[in-house]
Amino acid sequence: VIGPEDVREAARRIRGLVHRTPVLASESLNRQVGATAFLKAESFQRTGSFKIRGALAKMSSLQEETLAAGVVAYSSGNHAQAVALSARLSGAPAVILMPEDAPVSKRRATEGYGAEVITFDRYSDDREALGRELAQERGLTLIPPFDDPMVMAGQGTSALELLEEVGRLDVLVCPVGGGGLIAGCATLAKGMNPSIKVFGVEPEAGDDTRRSLELGERVTIPVPRTIADGLQLAAPGRLTFEVNRRLLDGVVTVADEEIVQAMTFLFERVKIVVEPSGAVGVAALLAGRVEVEGHRVGVVLSGGNVDAGRFAQLLSDAPTG
Amino acid sequence: VIGPEDVREAARRIRGLVHRTPVLASESLNRQVGATAFLKAESFQRTGSFKIRGALAKMSSLQEETLAAGVVAYSSGNHAQAVALSARLSGAPAVILMPEDAPVSKRRATEGYGAEVITFDRYSDDREALGRELAQERGLTLIPPFDDPMVMAGQGTSALELLEEVGRLDVLVCPVGGGGLIAGCATLAKGMNPSIKVFGVEPEAGDDTRRSLELGERVTIPVPRTIADGLQLAAPGRLTFEVNRRLLDGVVTVADEEIVQAMTFLFERVKIVVEPSGAVGVAALLAGRVEVEGHRVGVVLSGGNVDAGRFAQLLSDAPTG
Repeated sequence: VIGPEDVREAARRIRGLVHRTPVLASESLNRQVGATAFLKAESFQRTGSFKIRGALAKMSSLQEETLAAGVVAYSSGNHAQAVALSARLSGAPAVILMPEDAPVSKRRATEGYGAEVITFDRYSDDREALGRELAQERGLTLIPPFDDPMVMAGQGTSALELLEEVGRLDVLVCPVGGGGLIAGCATLAKGMNPSIKVFGVEPEAGDDTRRSLELGERVTIPVPRTIADGLQLAAPGRLTFEVNRRLLDGVVTVADEEIVQAMTFLFERVKIVVEPSGAVGVAALLAGRVEVEGHRVGVVLSGGNVDAGRFAQLLSDAPTG
Repeated sequence: VIGPEDVREAARRIRGLVHRTPVLASESLNRQVGATAFLKAESFQRTGSFKIRGALAKMSSLQEETLAAGVVAYSSGNHAQAVALSARLSGAPAVILMPEDAPVSKRRATEGYGAEVITFDRYSDDREALGRELAQERGLTLIPPFDDPMVMAGQGTSALELLEEVGRLDVLVCPVGGGGLIAGCATLAKGMNPSIKVFGVEPEAGDDTRRSLELGERVTIPVPRTIADGLQLAAPGRLTFEVNRRLLDGVVTVADEEIVQAMTFLFERVKIVVEPSGAVGVAALLAGRVEVEGHRVGVVLSGGNVDAGRFAQLLSDAPTG
């Protein structure tokens, strides 16, 4: 579907428009897991997550008049902000379909970038159908959240930056929602070094990609209820699954409590804010789900969009406090 | 007491042992206060605060046998960890006098660096006297938290790095506890550019330096009760006040609720964890206490040592939630 050169091409097209996010080290984390970990902090990316990489890569591939007619996206939040900002930067109008229970901060930020927000019910409505209808009605171009070669290639630029900065890695760990981030990152990473192991992490309740890989075909599960709101997908994408079933070395899962523990670890030891979906990689390391001992391990922290009040609530709900 | 060259000398002595901390920008903050702000994030410093700069600068000035006999420090927390790590790096034993109500994470971290911790009551005991007694009894050298030329010079290296990185600033804003950080930073900053304005920020309840500057002499207040546990000082230092009364352009105060709002802003918009004492500078900007419009403003975020649970508690206690 895509190759490493597509990721490099995407990197050239979005350069200067997105941040080169920092790679953080944590002595505490290294000590605790017996590895040398490199945290690629997409929480510091523009709009607070990696999503702008893919959205911009996609939009920069559109013809000028197509762009001027406007874009539409459906998203649980971070893709929404990414498309909204990308559209503003491109002078394109944007309509965002957003679940009505999306975190307040994400909706507010999306509207702040000038996008029109239309809400839907994530447990009953078909977001893809809604997006397609709206695109037809208004002549808008759909910017898919993950299932698109340009979008995947854009997301892979995160791994490109990481590997450029730290050199050889033995293992790369990424969150898996629709699978676009890990598809792009795995494509680039395995292209640079075929022996690197790439592991995905899903929330326990939302292990659609893990099940799909096991069965060898895409499995649809009920929309999962998990605190990792960015990973609440019912099924892998068609294109992302094509890539991921060839490239991934495995998908592991973490419980919501383990995600809260990882967020707390990142808060107290690394002094950074990472949203639930973004913390699953560190959760997997801390819980020993991925074999990393003695290895150089890259971990993508995919985003940092979590309200302070919600973080406090997650802490007080967690059994381990 | 000290000059800019002392700060530069301290920088040479501690180089490679402390982190060169990142300088962060925030479009949201700039928009909200109408200035271009540069946040010097000492929260990412080793031990989680700027304090290791001064402690190491001081310890590196001691003779080898003095160091080998051991050091002692009294601290509400961050200086404790700084001295503990500096001592471990120097192979010196360390005893730390710590208030019994100090945050758990600070005490745990201090012990984690191998220091012996002895507690005192911050509202009744005289920490300075206790420190002096212990120093005499055991032949230890006292590492003062702020009132020492070497310590002040070490703290000033934060401003040196900031100015080296961003160039000219119109205004520099620093938290004021004992006054060592701002004394070192003001010495360096005014040495490089006499027209820079340097403002201190204290918690409303702990405005001992503001009052002292107004009166032209050191004023002692009851030990303040404020969430900014690193700024709970009853009086400015003798040496720090000598420096600060010549160099500061003013000290402003912020309420505890304003500090929580600033911590929340830094959490949600900048995606970083800053402790109450470290957030007073941003609190002052957001509350409009310092005239910054149109200016290039440096703000020292002095530390990030706050438990996640305590942060959650502060949020739920705050009237604005």
